[in-house]
Amino acid sequence: MTRELSYRDSGVDRDAARRMTRGISDLITGEIAGFAAALPMPEMRNPRLLVCTDGVGTKLLLAQGLGRVAGLGQDLVAMCVNDLVTSGGHPLAFLDYLAVGELDPADATTLVTSIADACDLAGCALAGGETAEMPGLYAPGHFDLAGFALGVVEADEALGPRRVAEGDLVVGIASSGLHSNGFSLVRALIDAGALPADPDLLLAPTALYPAMMATVLGAGLPISSAAHITGGGLPENLPRALPEGLRAHLDPTAWPPGAAVEALRSCGRVSERELWETFNMGVGFCLIAPPEAAEAATRLIDDAWVIGEIAVGERGVDGLY
Amino acid sequence: MTRELSYRDSGVDRDAARRMTRGISDLITGEIAGFAAALPMPEMRNPRLLVCTDGVGTKLLLAQGLGRVAGLGQDLVAMCVNDLVTSGGHPLAFLDYLAVGELDPADATTLVTSIADACDLAGCALAGGETAEMPGLYAPGHFDLAGFALGVVEADEALGPRRVAEGDLVVGIASSGLHSNGFSLVRALIDAGALPADPDLLLAPTALYPAMMATVLGAGLPISSAAHITGGGLPENLPRALPEGLRAHLDPTAWPPGAAVEALRSCGRVSERELWETFNMGVGFCLIAPPEAAEAATRLIDDAWVIGEIAVGERGVDGLY
Repeated sequence: MTRELSYRDSGVDRDAARRMTRGISDLITGEIAGFAAALPMPEMRNPRLLVCTDGVGTKLLLAQGLGRVAGLGQDLVAMCVNDLVTSGGHPLAFLDYLAVGELDPADATTLVTSIADACDLAGCALAGGETAEMPGLYAPGHFDLAGFALGVVEADEALGPRRVAEGDLVVGIASSGLHSNGFSLVRALIDAGALPADPDLLLAPTALYPAMMATVLGAGLPISSAAHITGGGLPENLPRALPEGLRAHLDPTAWPPGAAVEALRSCGRVSERELWETFNMGVGFCLIAPPEAAEAATRLIDDAWVIGEIAVGERGVDGLY
Repeated sequence: MTRELSYRDSGVDRDAARRMTRGISDLITGEIAGFAAALPMPEMRNPRLLVCTDGVGTKLLLAQGLGRVAGLGQDLVAMCVNDLVTSGGHPLAFLDYLAVGELDPADATTLVTSIADACDLAGCALAGGETAEMPGLYAPGHFDLAGFALGVVEADEALGPRRVAEGDLVVGIASSGLHSNGFSLVRALIDAGALPADPDLLLAPTALYPAMMATVLGAGLPISSAAHITGGGLPENLPRALPEGLRAHLDPTAWPPGAAVEALRSCGRVSERELWETFNMGVGFCLIAPPEAAEAATRLIDDAWVIGEIAVGERGVDGLY
């Protein structure tokens, strides 16, 4: 006798998915249509819609290994909304994609709760999301997370490279640690016995910068451009905020790199250049502004420092290593 | 002597990532800011922003196994934009998240090209995306795909359950096959030797319904509500287009289920109920409309049939099994 196969037999538990959906439905804000979320459009003069997407990379493997996944929601939201606010706009909505091998409703609820909390901190709605069960793609206990942010900016208020001028200063704003980049290298160092697997040191959730940006822009400071310092570090990300023909001279003694960077440095297994090209090195976000505005920003924001200035030259960054 | 570890040693190839980015940059449309994409907002009276996210599920494991991944881009775009157009709105932009264990620039370019082609067919911009290298999370050759769609609808033109009335008819529109749902069961049947691993039968890309919706709405037909038939089939998805107190009586003899469903049925290993609750069974999208508009829609659209009617009763679907 040939037994019938059900969807449950093939590894997908629709009842567990429904229980999880009920558990998180209170976390979802906004007017949910049947199949998509619908959001009101703010009253604006000449809006531009802003969209971006990101994930948390292999930080989630380390977090899973150390049993500390609750910070990953903030990592995910931060990776997206920090990109978005570099434009001078603000996030309206966030959606998450959570892919798992086998759905553990409690773990999924922990993750989605942390995403919802981070959306609150970022001032945007958690407008929806997808939880996909993919037996065969993800090993037991493994999952992946991706996020999507939607925001708006007035076209004539948008920050960007075209606003940057020679003589502008670069303001560096403290990261909360390694944020969500470089973790394949971090894991290799841990595996090699060169770095302790200290969750407090390595897994601090990525700082959220929307409130900082709202403070600076709300004070009327004329910011030129901004950069979110992610994979590739300052050498790769700061030039994305610069036009052709302008260059940032940075002074790495102007800020404290933080304990995680000190641990990476003192392990002696990574070159100084590789550190700068992989990690944020203590600066998670940069503002570029005329000197008076830059100095004012360092007084308005905690843990912000003038870290360099803009000069004529090939678009790029120097002074770091 | 202790060798230094580089990011490349830890499995992340930034040069390959840059080559791939250059390869696909021509595919990205829209004004790209440094860190997020910026899109003009269409002129509208009272807009609602629509957002949704989805993935392609384990169809991608079967596609990878059969060496036929080029259709997955359309699957991904369709899973998102078909949800979005149930509202009566249209998609503006799409973003993809591609996560891989080790980046093969040629494969990634194939996937992103197929995503860009599907965005063209759906009438939206591929506004950006993220390609994440996650050594340790994905096995060699494995990858995951997630997508995000942004669209707009005039608030007073939005379709939905509140518009549905007793006596409305249900129009079923043909699917192109299994679309992107139920593949964990399909793979289990293949593994059990009960179903041939025929890529033409099983991997046909998910139909895109935005052009169909534009035709129907452009003709001025007064559609009440719409449903995208995905995981859970008609019994789970059609009720999402209905208000409390109304029920769809469906006639499953009204349309041809298609070759893939016939193959699943004739393998004799899945109950009729499980088939209906897992697969779209030949109907990928439903419109609900007053009789005259419903009949007109079946004349305007290829492969569309009146498959049922709306009556008073507990919200749900009957007549299928």
